[in-house]
Amino acid sequence: MRILLIVCDGLGDRPIKELNYKTPLAAAEKPNLEKLSSVGVKGIMDTVAPGVRPGSAPAHLAIFGYDPGKYYTGRGVFEALGLGLELKEGDVVFRFNFATVDDRMVVIDRRAGRISEHTGELAKALNDISIPGVELVFKEAVEHRGVIVMRGEGLSWKVSDTDPGKTGLRVKKCEQLDPSPEALKTANLVNKIVEESYRVLKDHWVNRDRVKQGLPPANVVLPRGASILTKVEGFKERYKLKASCIAGGTLYKGLAKFVGMEVLNVPGATGTYETNYKAKVEASLKALRCFDFVFLHFKQADLAGEDGDYRRKIKVIQQIDEALKPLTFLDDTLIVVTADHSTPCSIKTHSADPVPIMICGEEVRRDDVEGFDEFKAARGGLNRIRGLDLMPILLDIVNLAEKYGA
Amino acid sequence: MRILLIVCDGLGDRPIKELNYKTPLAAAEKPNLEKLSSVGVKGIMDTVAPGVRPGSAPAHLAIFGYDPGKYYTGRGVFEALGLGLELKEGDVVFRFNFATVDDRMVVIDRRAGRISEHTGELAKALNDISIPGVELVFKEAVEHRGVIVMRGEGLSWKVSDTDPGKTGLRVKKCEQLDPSPEALKTANLVNKIVEESYRVLKDHWVNRDRVKQGLPPANVVLPRGASILTKVEGFKERYKLKASCIAGGTLYKGLAKFVGMEVLNVPGATGTYETNYKAKVEASLKALRCFDFVFLHFKQADLAGEDGDYRRKIKVIQQIDEALKPLTFLDDTLIVVTADHSTPCSIKTHSADPVPIMICGEEVRRDDVEGFDEFKAARGGLNRIRGLDLMPILLDIVNLAEKYGA
Repeated sequence: MRILLIVCDGLGDRPIKELNYKTPLAAAEKPNLEKLSSVGVKGIMDTVAPGVRPGSAPAHLAIFGYDPGKYYTGRGVFEALGLGLELKEGDVVFRFNFATVDDRMVVIDRRAGRISEHTGELAKALNDISIPGVELVFKEAVEHRGVIVMRGEGLSWKVSDTDPGKTGLRVKKCEQLDPSPEALKTANLVNKIVEESYRVLKDHWVNRDRVKQGLPPANVVLPRGASILTKVEGFKERYKLKASCIAGGTLYKGLAKFVGMEVLNVPGATGTYETNYKAKVEASLKALRCFDFVFLHFKQADLAGEDGDYRRKIKVIQQIDEALKPLTFLDDTLIVVTADHSTPCSIKTHSADPVPIMICGEEVRRDDVEGFDEFKAARGGLNRIRGLDLMPILLDIVNLAEKYGA
Repeated sequence: MRILLIVCDGLGDRPIKELNYKTPLAAAEKPNLEKLSSVGVKGIMDTVAPGVRPGSAPAHLAIFGYDPGKYYTGRGVFEALGLGLELKEGDVVFRFNFATVDDRMVVIDRRAGRISEHTGELAKALNDISIPGVELVFKEAVEHRGVIVMRGEGLSWKVSDTDPGKTGLRVKKCEQLDPSPEALKTANLVNKIVEESYRVLKDHWVNRDRVKQGLPPANVVLPRGASILTKVEGFKERYKLKASCIAGGTLYKGLAKFVGMEVLNVPGATGTYETNYKAKVEASLKALRCFDFVFLHFKQADLAGEDGDYRRKIKVIQQIDEALKPLTFLDDTLIVVTADHSTPCSIKTHSADPVPIMICGEEVRRDDVEGFDEFKAARGGLNRIRGLDLMPILLDIVNLAEKYGA
């Protein structure tokens, strides 16, 4: 039996007055999810712990069975992996913004006018920076964002950010956050990187062009969110599962890669509203032929939640539901539908409200709850579980759990 | 959004045959609790852990979000704080009984005839006891009870009690309960206190009067239940909440003070059946105007449970319900109704049966369970939580939870 884990990012919500105190999931028309639910056991899940409002990265780690307290140091490593960089244990990864500073290093624009073109050229120039004793890789990401991989002996992720948080202030010195010599060394390297980035970028042709066009130049990088690649046992070693991932967003691809999943690229699959839902589901069905475990991620409910747009959230849920139609005919596959966290439209950010979950398949103790939403799930046969419980429960249902004791 | 936490001490119960297997809460008429429940999510809660039968002090600590395994050493510190004594970190506090001994220190009455008058005079005399290297404060409490605060270097709470548990036996020597020199020192101090208390009390005018009246003299103190004031971060620092407490009983005031709540004194509010329920609710409504968090405590359901009087328990619940009427019109306040533990009338003491809980307010994922009792709550949308989960869940609902990771 194979496992298909569908994570609808930010799916959970709170009651919305305009929907007569329903949630978007409760209000959506979702015949396919309902059909699936008839062979499912439902429940609610605290992905990290009750009352803990998680970021997507720690929440996914927990759902994959990896204690975020042990494996999560920051989002950078997952972004870097998702961008296709190869990392080694001990690599320290920063996220950065391209920003605009004056010649006294006072920040004029924290995002360099949300620069979105030619950042690859800028990263290429940054990769010529050479600092003794450390290897550096700069890689551009979406818009003004990017990552820096720092590889070498004696590095630490316990260092502070350099973005002063508002304009008119000087770039912050990176400082050590613990008394170790590794943290001191790393903080000094970060400060050197900021300095060197200004030297390399200030007269770069991309920036000369930008200035000509009246745009703020991307003349410095502001590293933040230091993180470290921890040693980790992947899905194959830990669960004996050959796993793959279908996702649009970089972060999710990176999280999947971190736990040893193969990232499958699906044309048209993005982390935006314009994603091709059907292509992703079709690719998942295909993947189930050669993988034991498929992680399918949809980002759009979270986007709608963060936009505070409940109508859009309903629409997105309906689009997902429609795309899931072929799954309702699957047998020999355990299908899990859940979320990494709630993103209530009323607060436009993550909340700790537990997420609904259903586990569907022949071998499952299906409950008598009809349908699938936050309220119904709370009455289901799974009751209330935690993210770290999920993988052990799934492994048991597909009869892959090892016996404990005799 | 503000939070009103209503703890009905000992509210939970077991099915009572005479009530056709309902509990007192299920049998009570409680229109206001029912009205509140319609905008609430219900559940059951193990205040400490499943099957753990907690005292009121550890149960309240857990509900307030303070791990009793870390912060609970005994009830003494909370009693002392509730009696208005100012404590410092490291103070060791004992509870004591005034008792009657003969001149060989054999206990004749463990409660000195439940002495209730002039114990303040006796405590005053005891405060003249001077033992080198330690500061002592004696303070009388209800009836034959009191507390002793011991302040000094190198003290420990790991020492045994002195009450032999029955009459006809000599006062027990206080012994060290761990091999530390601090425990030895403290045990010796306790034995010295017992000896000195006899010297000071035996010819005190209060006792000479009692003997004349044929009453047993309160001629010794029997310290027990050593506890220590641990370092603690209050509600303000930990949760950024300005908190206050409305309670009748000393213990509850002390628990509130321990976690940094301001204790508001309400005329007519007592920990007895004669409390003024309405005055307490009105004071809570007033307090909600200037505090972010109000803890309102009712002791009476616990008293009725310990009396084994289910009719009285029903009556008390109905009195509480009536007093709560003004709350059903509150908005912009999260109202929580729960208990610290169950006190089944059938066993007249605390049990580990989970307590019912409901969290009511606009932002809450209200469930479709109508009403509020142990059985209905178990079907609610919260499912089963633990005491330590409560504060994180509440902070999330009022959007004060910090995000974990990105």
